[in-house]
Amino acid sequence: MSQPADLLIHARWIVPVEPANVVLEHHAVVVRNGRILAILPQDEARSHYHAPESFELADHVLIPGLINLHAHSAMTLMRGIADDLPLMRWLQEAIWPAESRQVSYAFVRDGTLLAAAEMLRGGITTCNDMYFYPDAAAEAFDQAGMRAVLGITVLEFPTPYAADADDYLRKGLAARGQWHTHPRIDFSFAPHAPYTVSDETLARVASLAAELDTTIHIHLHETLQEIQDSLSRHGVRPLTRLARLGLLGSNLLGVHAVHLDQSDFDLLTLHGCSIAHCPTSNMKLASGIAPVARLREDGITVGLGTDGAASNNRLDLFQEIRHACLLAKVSTLDATAIPAHAAIRMATLDAARALGMGDQLGSIEPGKAADLCAVALDRFETRPCFNPVSHLVYVTGREHVSHVWVGGEIRVNKGNLMLQLNDRELLTLTALWQTKSGS
Amino acid sequence: MSQPADLLIHARWIVPVEPANVVLEHHAVVVRNGRILAILPQDEARSHYHAPESFELADHVLIPGLINLHAHSAMTLMRGIADDLPLMRWLQEAIWPAESRQVSYAFVRDGTLLAAAEMLRGGITTCNDMYFYPDAAAEAFDQAGMRAVLGITVLEFPTPYAADADDYLRKGLAARGQWHTHPRIDFSFAPHAPYTVSDETLARVASLAAELDTTIHIHLHETLQEIQDSLSRHGVRPLTRLARLGLLGSNLLGVHAVHLDQSDFDLLTLHGCSIAHCPTSNMKLASGIAPVARLREDGITVGLGTDGAASNNRLDLFQEIRHACLLAKVSTLDATAIPAHAAIRMATLDAARALGMGDQLGSIEPGKAADLCAVALDRFETRPCFNPVSHLVYVTGREHVSHVWVGGEIRVNKGNLMLQLNDRELLTLTALWQTKSGS
Repeated sequence: MSQPADLLIHARWIVPVEPANVVLEHHAVVVRNGRILAILPQDEARSHYHAPESFELADHVLIPGLINLHAHSAMTLMRGIADDLPLMRWLQEAIWPAESRQVSYAFVRDGTLLAAAEMLRGGITTCNDMYFYPDAAAEAFDQAGMRAVLGITVLEFPTPYAADADDYLRKGLAARGQWHTHPRIDFSFAPHAPYTVSDETLARVASLAAELDTTIHIHLHETLQEIQDSLSRHGVRPLTRLARLGLLGSNLLGVHAVHLDQSDFDLLTLHGCSIAHCPTSNMKLASGIAPVARLREDGITVGLGTDGAASNNRLDLFQEIRHACLLAKVSTLDATAIPAHAAIRMATLDAARALGMGDQLGSIEPGKAADLCAVALDRFETRPCFNPVSHLVYVTGREHVSHVWVGGEIRVNKGNLMLQLNDRELLTLTALWQTKSGS
Repeated sequence: MSQPADLLIHARWIVPVEPANVVLEHHAVVVRNGRILAILPQDEARSHYHAPESFELADHVLIPGLINLHAHSAMTLMRGIADDLPLMRWLQEAIWPAESRQVSYAFVRDGTLLAAAEMLRGGITTCNDMYFYPDAAAEAFDQAGMRAVLGITVLEFPTPYAADADDYLRKGLAARGQWHTHPRIDFSFAPHAPYTVSDETLARVASLAAELDTTIHIHLHETLQEIQDSLSRHGVRPLTRLARLGLLGSNLLGVHAVHLDQSDFDLLTLHGCSIAHCPTSNMKLASGIAPVARLREDGITVGLGTDGAASNNRLDLFQEIRHACLLAKVSTLDATAIPAHAAIRMATLDAARALGMGDQLGSIEPGKAADLCAVALDRFETRPCFNPVSHLVYVTGREHVSHVWVGGEIRVNKGNLMLQLNDRELLTLTALWQTKSGS
């Protein structure tokens, strides 16, 4: 007897991510109440379920919605404002002056809306964000119908957003309180980096995060300078300092982790920390190459992030997937490092685990949220196709994303973004901020 | 008084490449008889010239058509046939068996047609190719309306195409004779690599190339193994051996040049050789990172190539431009290495110079061929835009290419390929070869 469902998606190929290294052919995903009810052969799906909505994706591969494990979304409004500069000149001459002139609630909301549109159309359904005015970012992600984890950003120095560490924490916790019951919006603590936050504040963040059971999202070991400065100022490497302050644990998500020695690997493994790898940003800012293959061999969970649009300059996880594979190979001189399946897993299930959401997101399994992305392999630049997983990594780009669902609701249909804001309104909003930036 | 022209292209921005580091705003390009007649402000263009065809590209940046300086075009039909394997297993278990089973005149013609379609739609107007059956490749490039330089491939060992070095040379020279007067088709000598071609054959190629005034296109210093093998077998590094055999000169185009010591830099500089840098292929096959910033500092001309679709797996020069910038930065830990303007120049004028065509192609200057590419910056993922050259490198992809002209004839119009073959026929042809490969 046929059972009711909300949505049936028939796809040429399905890459469920879990179980690992599997490609299902001519299967369907059944969705009910925003969750995945079943994955089964198309004939069985047609006879066992009926649904008001159904998609026939005859040349497509269906994967879990991608998870952007590190972004500063509102920085889309500073996309390409300065490039080809060393990190400190880039920050001091371009980014920080622009931020101190411009950052406001409206800037963050509009910039995050633009980012959400870009990410959704590129198959990203969840974003782990770190920026000022997380309440404004939450409003934008809510409006766009994406999932997001907003960082309660903490710095010691004043910005247009807050005066000092206390003020950042107070405002961030208030935003969290306001959005606490939203089904798609979560909060984390985001002390910016070891070099911008004091021991006292870091210890306070550790205890608050334990109390509220949240992730701690922090830039970590991005440059050699950062490590040298920590040795000079604190006598130890940043990870050792964080360990002493009680910050390391399975809820600690370190971003970048480019420069690691044996003691760093040991600490990350011992405490079960996770890493957000941002290969494009690390290349563009000349930070170095993170030892991702080694991290994964040591059992450390590694996801992928785009970083902000001022240092990338695309919020494109297909690019990060490809770069993670390519950089791992060339930096180890081993062409088998980070094979295609592993990279897809990093951008989905491993990222979900890093956020403590591995039971809800990141794979196409019964019971999980129906966050899904279909990629069309029907264009001649994607032909022939001997292996759809290889194609996802080495051939397709976000421009081949055809359909995206968040919690079973369609957000991209045949390549068109289904938002309340249309493309024209987004462009108008961007033009407005561009004019302000130029002044 | 208004003068007649064939085509007027009005663009928001024009990046002529020569003069260097210039961006023209609200200018137009005037085309007559397939060549660029003038570049001038739009108002002046409207009053000084009239033409039956005119394009208003209000949100676009116009650049010279891109030049793919190293490809094995027909290998599109083996796109993704094997990945994540070490080089020798990849060659021995996947590529060579597939080639010995499949390569034929029809295979090369069809695979090259597919490649030409992919390249043109991605803004590539000239391809420097190396594969079997260069006559079949010439037929395909002619049909597609692209420019191409076909390598007269030379190997010592037999393949379905030829029996020995004599046979390769004889067949290649016959193909050259057949196509010699074609305005868009040229030939080069393409001895495959120092490790696959004997001293005697290399010397013969050097003298033939001098006699016929053609480029020599050869894989060079791709892997450490290649250099070690040359030291064992010949007692010298490959470049030193080529110098002794008389192969080095301003017509020598070495592909890859990943592993170079001081003697190699000295030889390349002394003889005025050029290099084709293939960053994606070098990463994917774990060959290493070519010292491109250093090569350019030494005054060596460096262009960019995609390599074949079996080792990339996209024939996408926008990707290679971005990778050239990113890899140069991360490998030197210098964020100023290979800035955006330099990368665009590598993919256009420097590639033209490497092919001895610097007076005809590679920049938007009066008298040069009207090979042009327009990139649309009107979508929200390309906004805001503070600097169109930064966007060309770090933001846009080939999916933003809107118009392409070869010799003033339109090949891509509003993103649609204008070929005799339509998309459906290309897909049919690909499906046919995929079936054969699977058998």
